[in-house]
Amino acid sequence: MTEVNSYLEENQDRFLDEMLDFLRIPSISSLPEHAGDVERAAEWVARRLKAAGMEAVQIMPTGGHPVVYGEWLGAPGKPTVMIYGHLDTQPVDPLTLWTSPPFEPDVRDGRVYARGACDDKGNLLIPILAVETLLQVEGALPINVKFFIEGQEEIGSPQLPAFLAQNRARFACDLILSADGGQWSESEPSISVGFRGICGLQIDIQGANSDLHSGSYGGAIQNPIHALTQLLSSMRNPQGKILVDRFYDAVRPLSEADRTRIAAVPFSEQAYLERLNVPSLFGEPGFTTLERTGARPTLEVNGIWGGFQKEGTKTVLPNQAHAKITCRLVPDQEPQEIVALVVTHVERHAPPGVVVTTTPFESTAVPYLAPADHPAFHAAHHVLETVYGRPPYYTREGGSIPATSLFLETLGAYTVSFGFGLLDENAHAPNEFFRLESFQRGQVAYTLLLKRLGSQAV
Amino acid sequence: MTEVNSYLEENQDRFLDEMLDFLRIPSISSLPEHAGDVERAAEWVARRLKAAGMEAVQIMPTGGHPVVYGEWLGAPGKPTVMIYGHLDTQPVDPLTLWTSPPFEPDVRDGRVYARGACDDKGNLLIPILAVETLLQVEGALPINVKFFIEGQEEIGSPQLPAFLAQNRARFACDLILSADGGQWSESEPSISVGFRGICGLQIDIQGANSDLHSGSYGGAIQNPIHALTQLLSSMRNPQGKILVDRFYDAVRPLSEADRTRIAAVPFSEQAYLERLNVPSLFGEPGFTTLERTGARPTLEVNGIWGGFQKEGTKTVLPNQAHAKITCRLVPDQEPQEIVALVVTHVERHAPPGVVVTTTPFESTAVPYLAPADHPAFHAAHHVLETVYGRPPYYTREGGSIPATSLFLETLGAYTVSFGFGLLDENAHAPNEFFRLESFQRGQVAYTLLLKRLGSQAV
Repeated sequence: MTEVNSYLEENQDRFLDEMLDFLRIPSISSLPEHAGDVERAAEWVARRLKAAGMEAVQIMPTGGHPVVYGEWLGAPGKPTVMIYGHLDTQPVDPLTLWTSPPFEPDVRDGRVYARGACDDKGNLLIPILAVETLLQVEGALPINVKFFIEGQEEIGSPQLPAFLAQNRARFACDLILSADGGQWSESEPSISVGFRGICGLQIDIQGANSDLHSGSYGGAIQNPIHALTQLLSSMRNPQGKILVDRFYDAVRPLSEADRTRIAAVPFSEQAYLERLNVPSLFGEPGFTTLERTGARPTLEVNGIWGGFQKEGTKTVLPNQAHAKITCRLVPDQEPQEIVALVVTHVERHAPPGVVVTTTPFESTAVPYLAPADHPAFHAAHHVLETVYGRPPYYTREGGSIPATSLFLETLGAYTVSFGFGLLDENAHAPNEFFRLESFQRGQVAYTLLLKRLGSQAV
Repeated sequence: MTEVNSYLEENQDRFLDEMLDFLRIPSISSLPEHAGDVERAAEWVARRLKAAGMEAVQIMPTGGHPVVYGEWLGAPGKPTVMIYGHLDTQPVDPLTLWTSPPFEPDVRDGRVYARGACDDKGNLLIPILAVETLLQVEGALPINVKFFIEGQEEIGSPQLPAFLAQNRARFACDLILSADGGQWSESEPSISVGFRGICGLQIDIQGANSDLHSGSYGGAIQNPIHALTQLLSSMRNPQGKILVDRFYDAVRPLSEADRTRIAAVPFSEQAYLERLNVPSLFGEPGFTTLERTGARPTLEVNGIWGGFQKEGTKTVLPNQAHAKITCRLVPDQEPQEIVALVVTHVERHAPPGVVVTTTPFESTAVPYLAPADHPAFHAAHHVLETVYGRPPYYTREGGSIPATSLFLETLGAYTVSFGFGLLDENAHAPNEFFRLESFQRGQVAYTLLLKRLGSQAV
C-alpha cells in the first residue's frame, strides 16, 4: 500500500464525519429562505479548502449565491487544473417520502442518505480530500490546482457567464476536472465526453380579437390551433427527422470510431422500454438510441396550449395558440444560428389567416464535445482502468451543462467529468444517497489522476 | 287600420309595462341561486298565457327548470302550430359594463335595456300578445295554437330530449314557430332555414409514465405533442379541406338554387375582416364564406394542451397531450357516424411510440334544414314582405339548435324561426337591449302569420 493510500485509509472516519457535517447544512439555492444556509455552506467549503492546504481561499460574490475559490500554485512549469463542483442542493419535497430527514445524514448499509450526498457535496469533497492527502504525504501537489465551487448550479448558474468573463485571469487553467458527475455502474467506469447544447423559442399564434362561436364562424376563418399543429408538423417528419432547412448542416458526422465508442456503452432496449413504459422506441432513422440522445440534435415541443382545456366541452373557435420548443444541439451547431433557422422556417411556413410571432429564449448553451484524443482523457482512462479493473465507456450525455461550454469558451479549457455518483442514487429525488465505496474509491482515483496529469502534457 | 292593429296600438303601453315587469325577474338558468327566479318567471308566463286566453296552462316539471305549456285548440280542421320560446336568461357578468342594472329595465332612445330583453323575453312575449289580440278582436284564433316556453335554453336544454319523448302526444303539432330568433337588420327581413348539427370527441395521447428530461430522452422516444400535432394535421389540409375519409360523403350538395339563395344574403368581406381583426378569410376551397358557415361541415380543434405552459422554459419531454375537437354537421351527416369516421381516422393515423385514446362527447345535434318549398316559409315570406316592404333573405346558421332537430325528430314537424331580435342587440353580452319598433312590428307580423297559416296548408 502506498503512503497516500495509507493516509486515506487512516483518515477515512474523519473524512466521513466531515461529509456528514457538510450535509447537515440545508443549502437549497432555489429557496430564498435558505440563502443564509448557502452562505454557511460556502464558509464551510472555504474553511475546508484552507484546512486542506489551499491558498488565497476566498468567497467571491457573483450577484447571486457566491463562488468559493482556492488555489495551490506551487508547481511552476506544470499545468494548472481547476476543479469544479457545487455546494448547493435541490429542494427536498416531498418530505414525506424520505426515510430519514434530508438534512440529518444517516449512514445505512454502506450508504450516506442525505440531500446533496451524491449531488454534489460528497462528490466535491473527494478532490479536496485528495489534495489534502497529497500535500500531507508528499508536501506538494504534482500539478497546480484551483478550486471553483459554485453555489447555484441547481438554479442554472445565472451569473456564471458574466462572473467568468470578469475573472478570466483568476480562473485561467489548462483543464477543468468536474467533480459533478458519475460513473456507469458500481463495477463499470465511464467518461462523459460530450453534452448537448440548447436553444429554443416560443411560437404565438393570434387569430381573431376574441374567442369565437365555432358554429357561427367555424369554416370561415383560420383556427390558430390548426395553424399551430400544421406549423409544428412541418418541422419534423413522422419518422422523427427534423425538416427545418439547414438544421443538420453544421452537425459533425459520426465517424466510425465515434460509433464504435458509443456502441460499446451497454444499452438494453427492453429495460429502457419497461422503465419508461412506452410501446416502442422512436427517433431519427439511421441512428441508435444512444446516438440519438448523445450525438444527434433534437427539436422537441416542451408545451402547447390554446382554447378550452377543462372538463366537458366548449364549442369555441379559439383566437390564440402557443407552443414552446427547445432544440438540443450537437457540435458544431450554434444556438443563435439554429434559432434563426427555426424562426425562418416559421416565417416561411406561417399558415394563412393568422399572425404568427416567434420569441427566442434568452438562455442557450453551446454544445460541448471534448476531442476523444485529448491527453486528459488518456490520463482519466488510465486511472479509471487502474481503479475499476476495466476500461471506461465513453458516453455522450443528452443534457446540457452550460458551465462546460462556458469554461471552454471563456477559459479555453476542456472539462473532464470526473465524479463518482451513480444513476440510482436519487439525485433530485427523495432518499438521495452516496455510496461510501464510491467516496473512498474517488479519493484514490483523484490522487492518481492529479499525479498522472502532473507527469504529462494536458 | 285594421281592428287588430288598432287593438295592438291601443294596448302598446300596457304591453311595454308587461315586458318590463317580466324583465325584472332575474331568471338566470345557469346559476343555482336563481332557480327560484326561473320558477317565478315560469309562473309569470303561465299567468300571462292565461290572461291572453290560453287554456290548459300548466308549468310542467322536466327534471331541470320547467316548461310552461298552454293551448287553444278551438279551430277544428285547422292545423296546429306550436310556438317556442325560452324564459331563462344568460348571466350578467361583467356587471360593471352595464350602463343600467341588467334586471332594472331602462327605456332609452326607443330601446329597452335589460338582460333577456332580446333573448328571449321580449321576443317570446310577442306571440302571446298577438294571440291575445286576435282572441280579443276576433273571438277566436285562425288556427290551433300551443305554447312551449322552456326554462333552460341557455344551459343547453339537457332534459329536452327525454321530456319531448315522454310528452309526444301533448306537443303534437304541424309546425313550430320559434320566437327565439331574429331578422337581418332593421329594414331587411330574413328567415333561418338551417342550423348545423354537432358532434365531437377528445383525443388523449399517452407517452412515458412521467414527464422526462428533454436532454436525456429527447430524440429517443416519441413526443406526445408532436404525435398529436401530426395527427391533427392529418385531419385537415392546409387549405381547410377535411381529410377524414368519407367525411363529406353524406353532405347534400348545394344546388344552384341553394347557392343563389345564399348569395342573395348581404356579406361584406371588408366589414367581416375588420370586425374580427383577422388578416384574411380562410376556408374550404370552392365555397363562399356564407356557404362555408352555413352549408359545409367543419372539424375544429376547440382546445389543445400538453407539457409546460407557464412563463419561462422547462425543458421537459412531456408524457401527455390532449385535444378537444367538434365537428359542425350539415344534412345528411349523422353525428354518430361522423364521430365514428374521425375515430377510425385517429386509429389509422395513430403515430408510433405512444398510446392514443378517443372519447366521443355525449352531447350531439342532428343538422337541421327545412325544405325551401315548405308552405310555412311561403307564409312567413309573405308576411315579412308585407311588414318590411321587401322579401326576406334565406339564411343558414352555422350554430346548432338542438331543439329544432329534436322537434323534427320527435314531433315530425319543421320549425320556422320567426323572431325579431337583431345582431347588434348584445344577446349574451352587457347592455342587452330590444328595439321597441321590433317589439311592435313583431306583434303585427305574428297576427298576420297566424292568420295566413290558418288559411293554407302547413
